[in-house]
Amino acid sequence: MLHSIGTWITRRALVAAMVAASCVLAGPPPSAAQPDPLPSWNEGPAKTAIIALVTQTTEKGGPRFVEPAQRIAVFDQDGTTWVEHPVYSQALFALDRVAALAPRHPKWKRTEPFKSILAGDFAAIARFSEKEWLEIVAVTHAGMSTADFEKLVREWLPNSKNPVLKRPVTELVYQPMLEVMAYLRANGFKTYIVTGGGQEFVRPYSDAVYGIPAEQVVGSSIVTKYEYRDGKPILMRQPKLFFNDDFDGKAIGINTFIGKRPLIAFGNSDGDRQMLEWTTAGEGARLGLLVLHDDPEREFAYGPANGLPDTKVGTFSPSLMDEAKARGWSVISMKNDWSRIFPGPKP
Amino acid sequence: MLHSIGTWITRRALVAAMVAASCVLAGPPPSAAQPDPLPSWNEGPAKTAIIALVTQTTEKGGPRFVEPAQRIAVFDQDGTTWVEHPVYSQALFALDRVAALAPRHPKWKRTEPFKSILAGDFAAIARFSEKEWLEIVAVTHAGMSTADFEKLVREWLPNSKNPVLKRPVTELVYQPMLEVMAYLRANGFKTYIVTGGGQEFVRPYSDAVYGIPAEQVVGSSIVTKYEYRDGKPILMRQPKLFFNDDFDGKAIGINTFIGKRPLIAFGNSDGDRQMLEWTTAGEGARLGLLVLHDDPEREFAYGPANGLPDTKVGTFSPSLMDEAKARGWSVISMKNDWSRIFPGPKP
Repeated sequence: MLHSIGTWITRRALVAAMVAASCVLAGPPPSAAQPDPLPSWNEGPAKTAIIALVTQTTEKGGPRFVEPAQRIAVFDQDGTTWVEHPVYSQALFALDRVAALAPRHPKWKRTEPFKSILAGDFAAIARFSEKEWLEIVAVTHAGMSTADFEKLVREWLPNSKNPVLKRPVTELVYQPMLEVMAYLRANGFKTYIVTGGGQEFVRPYSDAVYGIPAEQVVGSSIVTKYEYRDGKPILMRQPKLFFNDDFDGKAIGINTFIGKRPLIAFGNSDGDRQMLEWTTAGEGARLGLLVLHDDPEREFAYGPANGLPDTKVGTFSPSLMDEAKARGWSVISMKNDWSRIFPGPKP
Repeated sequence: MLHSIGTWITRRALVAAMVAASCVLAGPPPSAAQPDPLPSWNEGPAKTAIIALVTQTTEKGGPRFVEPAQRIAVFDQDGTTWVEHPVYSQALFALDRVAALAPRHPKWKRTEPFKSILAGDFAAIARFSEKEWLEIVAVTHAGMSTADFEKLVREWLPNSKNPVLKRPVTELVYQPMLEVMAYLRANGFKTYIVTGGGQEFVRPYSDAVYGIPAEQVVGSSIVTKYEYRDGKPILMRQPKLFFNDDFDGKAIGINTFIGKRPLIAFGNSDGDRQMLEWTTAGEGARLGLLVLHDDPEREFAYGPANGLPDTKVGTFSPSLMDEAKARGWSVISMKNDWSRIFPGPKP
């Protein structure tokens, strides 16, 4: 449990471009000729595979037609629909919360793990133990009602800042993925976020950013306790993991929260392996895709698959690459497959 | 945990009239004058309250208007949308499974708890301990894949039989509730089952019976384990409770699975208390309703509220009745408020 809590908070988190909402909501533009539903995707095997999956499963009378009720699409978040480097956005939130709370806790200046956070000592932060992360979770994610937590997240989002790209986390969503979501929904698919990050961290912005309502966000969660305040019920967040929606937890989470096997799944790291296995093991047309971060000029480069630099944040291992090849999953090269990374004017 | 498993299997379960599906899907009939959206409801405070809630929250520009995305309606199942007496349908399923498996387990004839089940000794069954129910759950609900369990449920449904009403459990759904569901959906509400029963027990029939897709069924669940069979992943059901969606668990389940506070909640027993509290504590127009089983001629009579006979199956306690009055929840008298109980020709 301790391990899981630490993994959860260190591995995971939030947010993407509010500016993208208009694109999400607009869907593909009307046109006489068949418009390109994925304009930010270069022609290539990944784009072809996505369009083929949608075409086959929506062709009435076709051999691979699937009823709309069964058209489920799942998206990992961190590293798949938005930036996860150098650290998960939810970890940024936790660190910012510690800084915000520090004036009320003068002792933190002299006590770990808070001392290192307040000193901005990222090297020390990287070495935090599970016990230390649990302490951080306890003060930043628990000990408050669900309503209070949601308020904190909403207030933090516009002030958030990726430490390398120097932009709010909400602006660092991937335009090609917004296009895929809109394309799938226009074809009767129900789109879900299935994240190792905190479900209650993602829900406050998922609709505005991805066009995905709160009830279609499946994520990790902590235990909540039903209590009364002034005769009214509240749910108090406890410093204890309830569900770890990562690795095998993603397949379990899909089954528990959705109860239907997806037709298409997007991921980017070893934590998405079982989600893609579970998705593509279904009968009929299924598709698994993995984003490979091989674009240090426009975003980041990490693997260690394909000889890219190793990382503990969003690891894409050689064994995952081997499995992708063996099972016929598509690998999306950020560098080659995406003509544009972020919403807004083309750079 | 043992207690919870026992409570779960003894208190809870499944199924309602396939014959009702046409009604559910058809929705209110088109007509020049305003047709009655709830024809099986007699005029009275409960019907008036439901129509007022829908009218207020859907009136564009009105003071209590609610965006469609926030229009969530939740329904308890056992005793609220279908018959739960004399025992929960899921317990019937478990007992039938023991009988079906008995030939492969000759020792069961001499070993409790199976001996009593095979002898049809309902008095002994009523005295089963938590440990004995756990043994029953282990052989009837666990030790198999999720796919195999779903197959068992689907095969059992048409052969199921309520021991008193002598009809398949799927025919014992309440017509007035099907009408409410259709009415709410026609007004932009998303309808959910929020049941103490097993989520994977309800999902195989929820769409056909209630028009509610699998992903809108929130219920109790057991732990599943991700394994491989012939290189393909399966989820194996473990004899261990994961989530008990009852009492405070219903409020927690709504928050965890849906992430939005309902506008309207229907229940019938003490297990629904927190669901109604959570729902009606929200701002704006909210409504909680409780079905009172006071109709021994057409269905059953139990409370012990209002001096009705006591029961351990779907208890409606005097304290719940007191709270309903104090908080302004509507109590639905099955006898007075419903002109018809089950689908099909009016009796």
